[in-house]
Amino acid sequence: MSTTRRNFIATAATVAAGTAVAAASPIIHMEKSKYPVVHHVFFWLKNPGSTEDRDKIIAGLKTLRQIDVIKDLRIGVVASTEKRDVVDNSWAVSELMFFSDLEGQASYQSHPIHQEFIKNCSHLWEKVIVYDAVDAE
Amino acid sequence: MSTTRRNFIATAATVAAGTAVAAASPIIHMEKSKYPVVHHVFFWLKNPGSTEDRDKIIAGLKTLRQIDVIKDLRIGVVASTEKRDVVDNSWAVSELMFFSDLEGQASYQSHPIHQEFIKNCSHLWEKVIVYDAVDAE
Repeated sequence: MSTTRRNFIATAATVAAGTAVAAASPIIHMEKSKYPVVHHVFFWLKNPGSTEDRDKIIAGLKTLRQIDVIKDLRIGVVASTEKRDVVDNSWAVSELMFFSDLEGQASYQSHPIHQEFIKNCSHLWEKVIVYDAVDAE
Repeated sequence: MSTTRRNFIATAATVAAGTAVAAASPIIHMEKSKYPVVHHVFFWLKNPGSTEDRDKIIAGLKTLRQIDVIKDLRIGVVASTEKRDVVDNSWAVSELMFFSDLEGQASYQSHPIHQEFIKNCSHLWEKVIVYDAVDAE
């Protein structure tokens, strides 16, 4: 068997193995175990209802994407789900981040880009609530 | 050029293309656009500090994994991050879910497995706060 033929078989086997792994482990399950620390922050505006101020915070939050310990960053606004007593829809912007570990979350807190965001945007919000969770299993 | 040689080149090109796509679109970005509706619920126990009651809720939440409109479900407990005024660590259990759209979230609310969870576990909690967000971008 030629070297080329052997290479082809090896490559084909790698491709097949890659496909098998992808089928057995959907994306969402891979992420679950890799980034177990969840950091969810909700912002209430000083000027409630100001889409301009809201968008300034959103623009500021986007700069956090440069911080490499943040494994995923989702920037949210209030969803138009059913109004129920238990649903708090009084906030304006949310950031939802995932970290590999608590050390990553701690280093994010003191990261210069995060500090710059706070310096530039904190005058826009009245209240912040942070929830830090870790996967229970 | 032999057929084998052409196959090898074609396969190698596919592998290379696959690598390029993976590099340009990390897993976390794929998920972002697919499941833009975020549903985050925090539970406070009637018996604060009861790990037994906490674990009953966690067991109940795991049953929700059978509901197919839930695209990812993460069950959390309080992470031992730095204590700060803005961090609320008074809750006991959290559920973080992702949906493809608002219709999915609405159908989850009335799903029999969800209703069964509420029936079996609601006597364990004192307070619930729900945050429903949708990706801002």
